Amino acid sequence: MSKANVIRVTSEQVIARVNARLASYLAEQRARAAALTPRAAELVDALTELTMRGGKRLRSVAIYAGYRAVKDATAEDPDPTTDVAAAVELLQTYLLIQDDWMDDDEERRGGPSVHAALSRQCGDPKLGASLAILAGDLAVGSAFELLHGAAFPTHRAAEARAAFTAMHFEVVCGQQLDLLDHPDVTLTHHLKTGSYTVRGPLKLGALIGDASPEQLDALEHIGRPLGIAFQLRDDLLGTFGDALATGKAVGNDLREGKHTSLVAEARATLGGDARDRLERVLGQRDASDAQLQEVTDALETSGARARVEAQLTAQLREAEDALDAAPFAAAGSDLLRELLGRIGLRDR
Amino acid sequence: MSKANVIRVTSEQVIARVNARLASYLAEQRARAAALTPRAAELVDALTELTMRGGKRLRSVAIYAGYRAVKDATAEDPDPTTDVAAAVELLQTYLLIQDDWMDDDEERRGGPSVHAALSRQCGDPKLGASLAILAGDLAVGSAFELLHGAAFPTHRAAEARAAFTAMHFEVVCGQQLDLLDHPDVTLTHHLKTGSYTVRGPLKLGALIGDASPEQLDALEHIGRPLGIAFQLRDDLLGTFGDALATGKAVGNDLREGKHTSLVAEARATLGGDARDRLERVLGQRDASDAQLQEVTDALETSGARARVEAQLTAQLREAEDALDAAPFAAAGSDLLRELLGRIGLRDR
Repeated sequence: MSKANVIRVTSEQVIARVNARLASYLAEQRARAAALTPRAAELVDALTELTMRGGKRLRSVAIYAGYRAVKDATAEDPDPTTDVAAAVELLQTYLLIQDDWMDDDEERRGGPSVHAALSRQCGDPKLGASLAILAGDLAVGSAFELLHGAAFPTHRAAEARAAFTAMHFEVVCGQQLDLLDHPDVTLTHHLKTGSYTVRGPLKLGALIGDASPEQLDALEHIGRPLGIAFQLRDDLLGTFGDALATGKAVGNDLREGKHTSLVAEARATLGGDARDRLERVLGQRDASDAQLQEVTDALETSGARARVEAQLTAQLREAEDALDAAPFAAAGSDLLRELLGRIGLRDR
Repeated sequence: MSKANVIRVTSEQVIARVNARLASYLAEQRARAAALTPRAAELVDALTELTMRGGKRLRSVAIYAGYRAVKDATAEDPDPTTDVAAAVELLQTYLLIQDDWMDDDEERRGGPSVHAALSRQCGDPKLGASLAILAGDLAVGSAFELLHGAAFPTHRAAEARAAFTAMHFEVVCGQQLDLLDHPDVTLTHHLKTGSYTVRGPLKLGALIGDASPEQLDALEHIGRPLGIAFQLRDDLLGTFGDALATGKAVGNDLREGKHTSLVAEARATLGGDARDRLERVLGQRDASDAQLQEVTDALETSGARARVEAQLTAQLREAEDALDAAPFAAAGSDLLRELLGRIGLRDR
């Protein structure tokens, strides 16, 4: 294969392909459900609505970048990563449904969360939550179904399935630590977010491209800091972000008492009254806007925000250094560099 | 292979092997979780506790029976069904955890349900429920991991994975219908219980044995009525069973307002006062023992119990007729016949 034939694919093209695949797959699932009984289609509708309402599809881009990092592709190739990308997006749907219910989050991606929508529909919060969990169940089952049909080289398929279940295992453990306000925020990030946002997707893409052990190792060295960077950015957006861009109410993280990196930094430095005010507002769902503003200001003036931003920069630099040293194909390296930028600078 | 070498394996031997595999697999999972962080081991402990506390392992026996129906085995063979049987048992753990939380059931298998135990531990019902859902998540992830490693013939593995995801899809849809009190109780049974209790396991076992299309078809004809019979028996036990044997409080189904086959039959015939009394007690968690007894008596005197028992007998006969006509190996037929008896006569 001559270098001249190697094609460049943009993130936007990857995202469009994944969206098309998700739409066609979910339409098939809906038909299957409706064939069992019309009501079952409602569950598929609920998860479809959330899945197609947006989302950054960063994981799909990471999968494709991981693939292209280890394999040149020509125009003739169909994209072999689309099914596993759709699988990971549906894994995310399932995790978001559960996460929103666990955190009592009413909004997601600029619309109602699944349990909130279903509770409103049936007028019974417990039934709505139960149906949301079932919609999540369908989503995770669909994720595995797509994984099973994905185009891994035969001799790497078992490894890929193991990577997927390992990713699932880590993210569930990370969610547990998050619920328990585990003091090691970096570990929580690493497990809850890094696993299936960056590290897992990069590995799955690379396995589709039949990566060498050295290449998998290099991707792990990029993915680990990048996953933590993603979550640090998420924490910053959850307190200082624009509600319109993030699709979530501002101040949510504070109102929910989330044990974010910002809170950890603030706790480590704030003393006296400022610390007391933080603890009083944290987890208070009915905190006033003025109270939230006061705490947000304290996170700024105490230097907590600046320190989290510095951590973010350091993690991104670590990922960048690992990328510079990696034995990757040029098109894949470029996509990975773009992914670093997206994660570092995203506003939603 | 001479017929003389064909070995007989009892259900008890199958169950012992599956229990041993579950114990060793869950110990590995616990070690993996503890290596991430000690707290994660608590989730594995919660699902292990429920999994190993008993359960009839009917599904494991069905898998082995399906396997032996299509394949003779000699003493030299290791049992290739153990991993997929453990997978289906963990799928059940996940379903039971969710089901108990959805139904607010505090007891299961003679001990606390997972959400009840975890809620008590942390003193917060919502957090306990969330952690229970996460324990269920680990269980379903484990089920898929075991499935991925199961010993299907290479050319049947994709079909087996598809059978597993189809089974998962059906049971989730069935659970939805159950929550919604769907009027078609038979359809609900077929999807919620039949799918993963009998039909799915028989098929998975048969695929390990590389079954012919005719054999798969015959198993479907046995599995469908047998799955419905299983649920009818469950309904009878839920109202007339012995709490000590079932591991659940008697009258639970009535207190929870479950739309069982008994209730459907009673509604079709009870009139006037008796019908009013039924509706008043159904779903009343604080119904007195005297009220429950009155309704239970009405289910008897109205003939609802007798009609459900007649349906059960008819479904068992249908399964038996299908078995008589099936092109199966003798040892497998015997195990299937034993399974029919277990399902028809079980007291827990």
